Amino acid sequence: MPSAFRHAAIVGKYQARGIRPVLEELAHFLVDLGIEVSFDRETAEATGVAGFDTVTPAQAGQRCDFAVVVGGDGTMLGIARELARCHLPLVGINQGRLGFITDIPVGQYREALAPIVAGDYEEEHRSMLEGDVWRDGQRIFDGLSLNDVVVSRGASASMLEVRVDVDGDFVANIRADGLIVATPTGSTAYALSAGGPILHPGIAGWVLLPIASHTLSNRPIVLPDAGEVHIGIVAGKDVSANFDMHNVASLMHGDQVRVRRSAFKVRFLHPRGWSYYATLRRKLRWYEGVG
Amino acid sequence: MPSAFRHAAIVGKYQARGIRPVLEELAHFLVDLGIEVSFDRETAEATGVAGFDTVTPAQAGQRCDFAVVVGGDGTMLGIARELARCHLPLVGINQGRLGFITDIPVGQYREALAPIVAGDYEEEHRSMLEGDVWRDGQRIFDGLSLNDVVVSRGASASMLEVRVDVDGDFVANIRADGLIVATPTGSTAYALSAGGPILHPGIAGWVLLPIASHTLSNRPIVLPDAGEVHIGIVAGKDVSANFDMHNVASLMHGDQVRVRRSAFKVRFLHPRGWSYYATLRRKLRWYEGVG
Amino acid sequence: MPSAFRHAAIVGKYQARGIRPVLEELAHFLVDLGIEVSFDRETAEATGVAGFDTVTPAQAGQRCDFAVVVGGDGTMLGIARELARCHLPLVGINQGRLGFITDIPVGQYREALAPIVAGDYEEEHRSMLEGDVWRDGQRIFDGLSLNDVVVSRGASASMLEVRVDVDGDFVANIRADGLIVATPTGSTAYALSAGGPILHPGIAGWVLLPIASHTLSNRPIVLPDAGEVHIGIVAGKDVSANFDMHNVASLMHGDQVRVRRSAFKVRFLHPRGWSYYATLRRKLRWYEGVG
Amino acid sequence: MPSAFRHAAIVGKYQARGIRPVLEELAHFLVDLGIEVSFDRETAEATGVAGFDTVTPAQAGQRCDFAVVVGGDGTMLGIARELARCHLPLVGINQGRLGFITDIPVGQYREALAPIVAGDYEEEHRSMLEGDVWRDGQRIFDGLSLNDVVVSRGASASMLEVRVDVDGDFVANIRADGLIVATPTGSTAYALSAGGPILHPGIAGWVLLPIASHTLSNRPIVLPDAGEVHIGIVAGKDVSANFDMHNVASLMHGDQVRVRRSAFKVRFLHPRGWSYYATLRRKLRWYEGVG
Repeated sequence: MPSAFRHAAIVGKYQARGIRPVLEELAHFLVDLGIEVSFDRETAEATGVAGFDTVTPAQAGQRCDFAVVVGGDGTMLGIARELARCHLPLVGINQGRLGFITDIPVGQYREALAPIVAGDYEEEHRSMLEGDVWRDGQRIFDGLSLNDVVVSRGASASMLEVRVDVDGDFVANIRADGLIVATPTGSTAYALSAGGPILHPGIAGWVLLPIASHTLSNRPIVLPDAGEVHIGIVAGKDVSANFDMHNVASLMHGDQVRVRRSAFKVRFLHPRGWSYYATLRRKLRWYEGVG
Repeated sequence: MPSAFRHAAIVGKYQARGIRPVLEELAHFLVDLGIEVSFDRETAEATGVAGFDTVTPAQAGQRCDFAVVVGGDGTMLGIARELARCHLPLVGINQGRLGFITDIPVGQYREALAPIVAGDYEEEHRSMLEGDVWRDGQRIFDGLSLNDVVVSRGASASMLEVRVDVDGDFVANIRADGLIVATPTGSTAYALSAGGPILHPGIAGWVLLPIASHTLSNRPIVLPDAGEVHIGIVAGKDVSANFDMHNVASLMHGDQVRVRRSAFKVRFLHPRGWSYYATLRRKLRWYEGVG
Repeated sequence: MPSAFRHAAIVGKYQARGIRPVLEELAHFLVDLGIEVSFDRETAEATGVAGFDTVTPAQAGQRCDFAVVVGGDGTMLGIARELARCHLPLVGINQGRLGFITDIPVGQYREALAPIVAGDYEEEHRSMLEGDVWRDGQRIFDGLSLNDVVVSRGASASMLEVRVDVDGDFVANIRADGLIVATPTGSTAYALSAGGPILHPGIAGWVLLPIASHTLSNRPIVLPDAGEVHIGIVAGKDVSANFDMHNVASLMHGDQVRVRRSAFKVRFLHPRGWSYYATLRRKLRWYEGVG
Repeated sequence: MPSAFRHAAIVGKYQARGIRPVLEELAHFLVDLGIEVSFDRETAEATGVAGFDTVTPAQAGQRCDFAVVVGGDGTMLGIARELARCHLPLVGINQGRLGFITDIPVGQYREALAPIVAGDYEEEHRSMLEGDVWRDGQRIFDGLSLNDVVVSRGASASMLEVRVDVDGDFVANIRADGLIVATPTGSTAYALSAGGPILHPGIAGWVLLPIASHTLSNRPIVLPDAGEVHIGIVAGKDVSANFDMHNVASLMHGDQVRVRRSAFKVRFLHPRGWSYYATLRRKLRWYEGVG
């Protein structure tokens, strides 16, 4: 049975206008429920929230037993990567239009959080990609992605060619604008725009798909996440690799991007009755005619 | 370590012209290797092959320890479903253009089979769908699919509407020409034509995709194969359900098609060095420019 | 300068519940504007509207100088084909959700119709397809389509193969579930679901596109509407041809469907300020995020 | 009736290895047919071809009555834009894999050219896009495209937003990786990779399509080429506009790319019996199964 929580870390999208009172109300609401509250240090400093203990992400991982994130999917994406190593479960409160992974509207957090902190919730795990960039036998970059790793050409170049191998097995040479390796979570983000399928979070796989492939039969392919994907740069100018929001520019012929499943998973907590499919229906406006 | 084989069942696409000498040569080749050979009874009767023991599929499952199938993907599909319950491994020899699952050219079976019967091969397992059709609380049909289950409207009807649930969780109401639930094996068959992604056979999932959906955001979705998919007929005329090649016609409002993972898996044996990706590259002619 | 109108034909979707008072109010509104009003005979009989002159479609073409159609896109489609030969301009009043070609909401017809009948409107012409089916040198069917002509296989058949020629020039053999030839008007109907592009009504062309093509590079192709498209049935069972809503079943090997531009165009009248792109934005909910 | 030709300009892809003997043979072949031959000056200088009159493109337009281009589609694209203003017809000889617009194999130019220079050929016209970039009321760039105009975001940016208007009529705000406006010629180039339809060269239209649009219903739209398309930069970093091969970088919020039909058309000469559809079938390998 899920256990109740005792110590929350609160993180906010501090660039958001007027977020301070929201965060303070949220903190007092949790305190009233008997929960100890610490604020993410950067959030506290940026918003001016005072009167609460502040913690770094690493300290949050040690002292807190869950985190409440106020913002949109983008904010959650950043926090989730940072806190994944601590195994801290996350609850997302959305100030604007509901997201795929931040699904509690700011106006309803009271009704939603009270049962969750009491231990009544749905827990869901999301896999992450971990990857690195290699040049001449040296690792020149490493990163973690909850959404995707994207290798793409520069705007002035006419083409990118990459060679893809999985666990030493040659998959294909792909000529395209770019190549996406997306997690189930990322399958409803950029990969969806590029023509990829939706991967239920329970799928132990990635979707590998080219962006604007020269070869029309280069369809999206769903791969088991147990393997290591190697993407070698064969040709292209101004090639870059993008790990969620972190960009490595100026990749060169011979460089290789390697991607595998991270040992860490993101833990999301949802109100009881939460449904992944309901989120899809709402976000994709399914069954509303031609649109 | 894989073990050597002792008793082959030979099955052939007996409508194929001139297949009898091929089958006989194959049988003698196996006998010369010290393998006992039985012929599928229908194959023997239809082709006139004589001088060998004949078996029903059920007997093949009891007496033989592998089957050699001569034909194309369609032939293999039928045999694989029949033999799946016996757990008999299958080797596919293709008389024509190589298929996705029959990958030994008829001209090269000697070089390919000799190591395989000696125990030197790659073994690969393919999941199957098992499903049934329910009306008024009665099961009116059940079937097994290695490729897919397809629910579709008749040609004169303007629309089909189905309601999809997975394990009791409502997924979507879909208005389309049809709906496909495809296995990884089926993902390179009809589902690919309808716009689906390729699923590596190692993916424990199905792809669920509409055919010509009215709602443009009804994208293909990859679901864990652990769940049971219910497809309820909401509206449509001349609706039918198709399990690989078996068609149930005249489904009506209220009927429900239920699909789940079969307990049985198909076992394919390939020559050492076989690669799933090489098959994709060959069949889809990847990396040959615009096509 | 557009001229004012004097005599309206009113046509209604008479299966619609409660349409009689709407039609009567509309008729009185037009009479009050000094417009003579005749009712489509079938509409009058089916709804019980009385006290007005009634006309057949042919008589409407002779006596009236415009028609007001109350219903959705489907109703308009039927009427437009019938009245196209008379060159009668059409105004569409929509009782439900606005359509692509019926764009005046029933609650606003007063404001919209008053300027139109006074001669202040935008006029737009839509091309139509006319086609026939040939067997053994005999024409066995002919039809007119504002949306599309669709050749498709039956549900139990595994494939359709057709041969397409344009003006005697061989285009391609296509193996698919079906083949659509759509007008610009039809490009936002079924063809859009099947993956076709949107054709602005000003484009003098058709879009020819397969449904679930076996060959992944069989992309939609936009052809000049000056040519005659021949679709020959090469293989398939239960093949049918569909002209908007009229279905010809049981086409056989050797039958040929021929399609060309009709000499008639449909004339739609819209309120001043009407915009084709605004209709697209509304119907396709453009610029609303991922959906 | 097509007239015979008297004076050829020869242009070659002079980076190609071993092209000099090919060009010299071709020149002598034409001289033997009684044709006067001039060499493109840059081609002559780069390859070392000597003993022939040399001309600038402008001079070719005045003195010659046709041009023979040796190279691939890329070479032809550059020459066609340069010579379009002179109304000079072009014949394409391809050294490598046949292209969409260079369709005479180098090994067969004798059989193909002899009838053409005698006046026996198929002539085909291709429309071009002409466009410019505006900033603060100033035109900062102008270009001509036989294929397309592409506005796209930089690799590190997460999004591009543009506003599209046609002849002052608002079409849509589009959030995507980029936006393509392609001619019928360009519809089989980059636009095809990005998911666009094929436009027959006889279509008086452009295809406008987003690359990886955030809004799934932002489908390709085919517009009449009579209108002027305005693409205003609303948001994005490192935005660039690409006219065939010419790139304008660093577009900013408020800049506008304007595109219209050029007054000039490219004239291609093909051997009698040439077929646009045959080119499509060959390049897209239609009707070869799943690929």
